[in-house]
Amino acid sequence: MSGYTVADHLVDRLAELGVDRIFGVPGDYSLGLLDHVVHHPSVRWTGCTNELNAGYAADGYGRLRGAGALCTTFGVGELSALNAVAGSYAEHVPVVHVVGAPALAKQALHRPLHHTLGDGEFGHFVAAHADITCARACLTPDNAVAEIDRVLVEVRDRRLPGYLLMPADVAEVPVERAAGPLPLAVDGTDPEALVEFTEAARRLLAHAGTLADVGVLAGLLVHRFDAAGRLAKLLAAGVPHATTPWAKSLVDETAPGFAGTYSGAAGSTEQTRRVIEDAAALILAGVQFTDLNSGLFSQRITRSRTIELGAGSASVGAATFAPVELPAALGALEGLLAELETGPLPEPSPADPLPAAPPEQSLGQESLWREVAASLRAGDVVLADQGTAFYGMTPHRLPAGVTFVGQPLWASIGYTLPALLGACTADPLRRGVLLIGDGAAQMTVQELSTVLRLGVPALVVVVDNDGYTVERAIHGPDEPYNDIARWDWTTLPALFGVPAATAVRAETVGELRAALAGAGPDGFTLVQAVVPRDDVPELLDTLTRALGPR
Amino acid sequence: MSGYTVADHLVDRLAELGVDRIFGVPGDYSLGLLDHVVHHPSVRWTGCTNELNAGYAADGYGRLRGAGALCTTFGVGELSALNAVAGSYAEHVPVVHVVGAPALAKQALHRPLHHTLGDGEFGHFVAAHADITCARACLTPDNAVAEIDRVLVEVRDRRLPGYLLMPADVAEVPVERAAGPLPLAVDGTDPEALVEFTEAARRLLAHAGTLADVGVLAGLLVHRFDAAGRLAKLLAAGVPHATTPWAKSLVDETAPGFAGTYSGAAGSTEQTRRVIEDAAALILAGVQFTDLNSGLFSQRITRSRTIELGAGSASVGAATFAPVELPAALGALEGLLAELETGPLPEPSPADPLPAAPPEQSLGQESLWREVAASLRAGDVVLADQGTAFYGMTPHRLPAGVTFVGQPLWASIGYTLPALLGACTADPLRRGVLLIGDGAAQMTVQELSTVLRLGVPALVVVVDNDGYTVERAIHGPDEPYNDIARWDWTTLPALFGVPAATAVRAETVGELRAALAGAGPDGFTLVQAVVPRDDVPELLDTLTRALGPR
Repeated sequence: MSGYTVADHLVDRLAELGVDRIFGVPGDYSLGLLDHVVHHPSVRWTGCTNELNAGYAADGYGRLRGAGALCTTFGVGELSALNAVAGSYAEHVPVVHVVGAPALAKQALHRPLHHTLGDGEFGHFVAAHADITCARACLTPDNAVAEIDRVLVEVRDRRLPGYLLMPADVAEVPVERAAGPLPLAVDGTDPEALVEFTEAARRLLAHAGTLADVGVLAGLLVHRFDAAGRLAKLLAAGVPHATTPWAKSLVDETAPGFAGTYSGAAGSTEQTRRVIEDAAALILAGVQFTDLNSGLFSQRITRSRTIELGAGSASVGAATFAPVELPAALGALEGLLAELETGPLPEPSPADPLPAAPPEQSLGQESLWREVAASLRAGDVVLADQGTAFYGMTPHRLPAGVTFVGQPLWASIGYTLPALLGACTADPLRRGVLLIGDGAAQMTVQELSTVLRLGVPALVVVVDNDGYTVERAIHGPDEPYNDIARWDWTTLPALFGVPAATAVRAETVGELRAALAGAGPDGFTLVQAVVPRDDVPELLDTLTRALGPR
Repeated sequence: MSGYTVADHLVDRLAELGVDRIFGVPGDYSLGLLDHVVHHPSVRWTGCTNELNAGYAADGYGRLRGAGALCTTFGVGELSALNAVAGSYAEHVPVVHVVGAPALAKQALHRPLHHTLGDGEFGHFVAAHADITCARACLTPDNAVAEIDRVLVEVRDRRLPGYLLMPADVAEVPVERAAGPLPLAVDGTDPEALVEFTEAARRLLAHAGTLADVGVLAGLLVHRFDAAGRLAKLLAAGVPHATTPWAKSLVDETAPGFAGTYSGAAGSTEQTRRVIEDAAALILAGVQFTDLNSGLFSQRITRSRTIELGAGSASVGAATFAPVELPAALGALEGLLAELETGPLPEPSPADPLPAAPPEQSLGQESLWREVAASLRAGDVVLADQGTAFYGMTPHRLPAGVTFVGQPLWASIGYTLPALLGACTADPLRRGVLLIGDGAAQMTVQELSTVLRLGVPALVVVVDNDGYTVERAIHGPDEPYNDIARWDWTTLPALFGVPAATAVRAETVGELRAALAGAGPDGFTLVQAVVPRDDVPELLDTLTRALGPR
């Protein structure tokens, strides 16, 4: 390996996006490419145990750093990761999926190579990525530099995954170092549209007597389009506000005016519901109402009283103004809110909405999530799998400085376990806290081996309740399809070759409390939390009563 | 649930194909459908730990029974299984992939439901199956019965996977019980083409003085198109023959005339090479030369001396006759060979080509596979993962009645571990023998939990050699991307809640021999076989010296 090649250009451009770690599994079509990764001065390789897990890890990393990267091998590797990439698409996470392919010189012979369908064709798997990536390229010596830059800019600016097929020989083609960085993102807002939007918003906000009559519901796209800082400045004026479950931790939940997590009429407290649904003027900032993010579409939003900000357009009542980008619209609203008088803010919700249970009490869903919430520290990254963990944690107020990661739209169970690896390596000074059910953890369990191998600080709580409890709550509580094998999770450190790591079983509140207290900011702790089979958190109970197999 | 519905029709039709077990993972869009599975009189549900594993299990089951079935949920589930389904396509395994989807009544509202991309569209994932299934259908109340029958017939007759999207409400639509079974497969052979093929073949075979001058190389498609019995009758005349690695165990390797496994010039013994390459008349029966099935295309086949039988056509020299189906062509050749005189057959290769090593000797690749081969019993189903296990076992002569399963075209490492579950449940009286490297086993390890839960008889040999040894042999022997975490595999039974199951570590020939001897025809035994990191079987060494990252 000598000189500067297409592979070097790719890794340098990924580094420019903020990527300092690429996740994946090696394959013979990608080994040459990986040489350029492991020898790069600022980018590291993180080998995962399988490609789905690597894709989840890249997604978790991308959520914290604004971009992630995944490298797999042709066919077998890339298809194994497809569910993860589709999840990144659904949940607006910019992940670059780089696939090592047979050399173009070999493809040209159209022979049945391994990892192909045996028909001599090499275009099947880029086609499988068509609907789940915002940009794709099959690299050649002539197009590689331009296509890498095009796909990476699309990924960066649209906050969606992209796909690069890198034949082994193309990776080694010599190229010049790029003369400059990737073109900067430009704010596509039309100044005239912004002015008209602002005037219309001013008229609507006039219905509010004071800031206390305004409500703000903040959603995921505020995070994805890097507008959390803008939102915080707007809220600092003193506006009652809430987030959707999908956007949990987007705002400081201990700040004045925070009124909880809004899950529609079906899953919100009365205080949260009133702040959003009864506001004289409501601002929806980057909100997408999906079924599990809205109490099954039970939100009650009156459009005539609502200002709605999307990624690239803004609406006031029935009128839409475009192109108006989210940060620009938030900036305009910040100015408008400054013109309003302050008013009384809603009472902050108690940090512990539930009374503590006595230590000898057997664990249940309610006491489990209360104790976990009480044990969180500023800086923790909490990953709650789409099951009792996500719904159990949603109502709890988080300490300031905690990041919460869930996946309520794509809702692929098992996702958060490898995402823990990604999140912990994205910001290695923070502790990862994984909350996951036993059925979900069985899907992706082997990636805890990588977490232990890298020595990143992590607390893992596995909810041992003997099966797919969410599915039981929806349908077939006693049917065999909701059964799983019952594991002894405390043996995992020994399996993974780190027998000294802490792994304990907790059946009572006191045992859980002791285990959580013993889990420091460093090191690894696993807690197998045993709860009754059919116990479900209240929010989940509300949702599943309305869901059914149909 | 009352009355007979679309779901009942589907499960009855699957049973007609010979399926008595459906593999998968439940999801809320498939729970209603699963009620019809678990209450069916002859079909059982086997819940797996994740969908990729379920797909591999269905493939392993399908290889032994001629058809397999997989049931997943929309989006997250089906995409996780995509690599397995593509593998079934590449390797000609008939697997029906049934996906539980949101009710048509809900799809019609085009709302952002969970497990979708959030765009209100429901056609993205059937599209992802387009290139890897031979038939697909999105079921509706009007088309369900006809489309289920069409897709199942295609899967059955083409020996390729198919896809059925079953909306939750369509599963419950009442239908009549089918009046009769699925239409029978018809032999599409054109009698005139068969006559002309037979005449041409007779002329070519005239170049052989006796049957000893003929060679037969048998390939995978003979197995897939149910022609192993026909082939056996043809070989019984006394013809020297070999199989490709992909077709290993297609013929009785202890029968007269068997000359080994032909891997091209690069990976065959001199005897095998001569029988195939120097035959006065060579019959290629259902052979596909892929890179890893031909010593990297090093086969030396002289077309003018060759009769080649494909799935639907037959060639003699440069002339192709079609449609001529494989069983019909084999039948014709059987008649022609009966007209030739017998001659001296090749010496049978010794059962143990290598001398036994002393018990105190440290295990290496050579002694490992020799001992494993020596311990096999008639009836065993041996699954060798695409790595040192596959290449280490290929040269060993198998006892009669052993089935060998590998995946040398698709070559997805980790495949054989869940395929063990499928194979063991397809024929529960036979013992499954899984041979797999540590890196591969880490990919899919959790499915051993299901093997233990079901109590099927299995012997598992995990080759502990500290990383991706095949990749090391190809490129980057000391690069970090070929490293993996080193596990203590003997803890697995405890993790999976069956601490009494046997799991031992073997570092010497004697320890391995004792462990293999202790593994009876029933029960579960896991052996962690420790071998040097960079030791590779000879055949693999030959192949990887020619492969490179490019």
